[in-house]
Amino acid sequence: MADILSPYQLRQQIRSGEFSTNTSGYCAGFVQGNLAILPADYADEFLKFCQFNPKPCPLIGMSASPGDFMLPELGEDVDIRTDVPRYRIYEQGVLQREVTDIKEYWQDDMVAFLLGCSFSFEEALLADGLEIRNISEKVNVPMYRTNIECKSAGRFSGTTVVSMRPMKPADAIRAIQICSRFPSVHGAPLHFGDPDAIGIRDINTPDFGDAVTIKDGEVPVFWACGVTPQVAIESARPPLCITHSPGHMLVTDLPNSRLAIL
Amino acid sequence: MADILSPYQLRQQIRSGEFSTNTSGYCAGFVQGNLAILPADYADEFLKFCQFNPKPCPLIGMSASPGDFMLPELGEDVDIRTDVPRYRIYEQGVLQREVTDIKEYWQDDMVAFLLGCSFSFEEALLADGLEIRNISEKVNVPMYRTNIECKSAGRFSGTTVVSMRPMKPADAIRAIQICSRFPSVHGAPLHFGDPDAIGIRDINTPDFGDAVTIKDGEVPVFWACGVTPQVAIESARPPLCITHSPGHMLVTDLPNSRLAIL
Repeated sequence: MADILSPYQLRQQIRSGEFSTNTSGYCAGFVQGNLAILPADYADEFLKFCQFNPKPCPLIGMSASPGDFMLPELGEDVDIRTDVPRYRIYEQGVLQREVTDIKEYWQDDMVAFLLGCSFSFEEALLADGLEIRNISEKVNVPMYRTNIECKSAGRFSGTTVVSMRPMKPADAIRAIQICSRFPSVHGAPLHFGDPDAIGIRDINTPDFGDAVTIKDGEVPVFWACGVTPQVAIESARPPLCITHSPGHMLVTDLPNSRLAIL
Repeated sequence: MADILSPYQLRQQIRSGEFSTNTSGYCAGFVQGNLAILPADYADEFLKFCQFNPKPCPLIGMSASPGDFMLPELGEDVDIRTDVPRYRIYEQGVLQREVTDIKEYWQDDMVAFLLGCSFSFEEALLADGLEIRNISEKVNVPMYRTNIECKSAGRFSGTTVVSMRPMKPADAIRAIQICSRFPSVHGAPLHFGDPDAIGIRDINTPDFGDAVTIKDGEVPVFWACGVTPQVAIESARPPLCITHSPGHMLVTDLPNSRLAIL
């Protein structure tokens, strides 16, 4: 049943409370995005942070003005207060609770940001016949803190978090080609090979997500990851911030192919 | 003085015998190509071999008909019998001698092929600010026989020869992006990292060219190389074959940028 829902239909089910699980595998071919909602005072700096760090923070949509909760450029009737299956509420950078609707948290000065996510490029890699280990092994992609500094913007700063997918070198070369077409969903990898070169001590102990098997002849390939802005937000400690819960994304009406720059 | 000669002027000097050294560094911005000349009987099979193996054998021009020694699509007044500074004459696949003019060897059934060479993509990498070790160290690029089989065509067969340039992973990713734009000069690398995975036993002992320094934190990056068709020709043992002498290329009127597919 999952695969026959349109993004609009899925969002309507989410809004009604009928659907509240993770969105992985739903609405194949359509862009899903990472959500961050901040008060205007912080939003200006966050926008700059995204502009300065486009690989981990690729912006694909935002509120036209503070207080706008409708995001028409992302899809029909998208209400960012109700159309994400599960939200996380942070106060002073600390996670307080998860909810399925944020109407009671929404303020007149809030700005919603939608950032590209790896689901889009993973789909393009799979379509090309490449194996993605976290999908084959049915786990969360492994993610690691690195020593690659983001360029700070006001109160937002931190180091880049990366996701890792092991591949044979020839497949990694193909993945670099494919992902280069999709700068708004993290683009080409940042690094491959030696984890230590980017400050990762133990490849088998990810900081987020799950470890995956690295087979003989494979190298780890590292992409900038959407957890980077979450870490930056936590350290900026805004009074209130709302994000999606991992895996519970906003599903847009934008085809993934629309994100390809060529 | 070298940098102010146009390709046409350089070819005229070559034709007159005034210039007979290698063409590296001359006519920056213009395509230089690898030459192979074969009798028609072998040329048909060789054309198929190039078609089957476009990465090592990227064809950028050929005689319109057997016997045609003028190659107008490659530049003004290009006479392939006189406009290459140094030729190699092979009989039965064995190098016999080097000459600076092949008028006396030219036959009515001969077909000239021009294949893309790494000079073009090296220029694009340098323009992007990447270091190319063989250029920094002023030596020939190291080249290696591999276990990557070419697809055979008639009497032409063999394994792929690769060139190697060591790079930091982030630079290698950028190089993959840049070279992907240039499929007619070998395109993206075939492999990076473990030499043994493609049948190279000792990275410090290239089969052709010179060894270069691989620094800490760098990985060897391997491109398909224009020596591959030379090796295939040697094993096909045609009665007569003429190639350029390494480094002594045909300099065309085609801008390198014209080879970019995007």
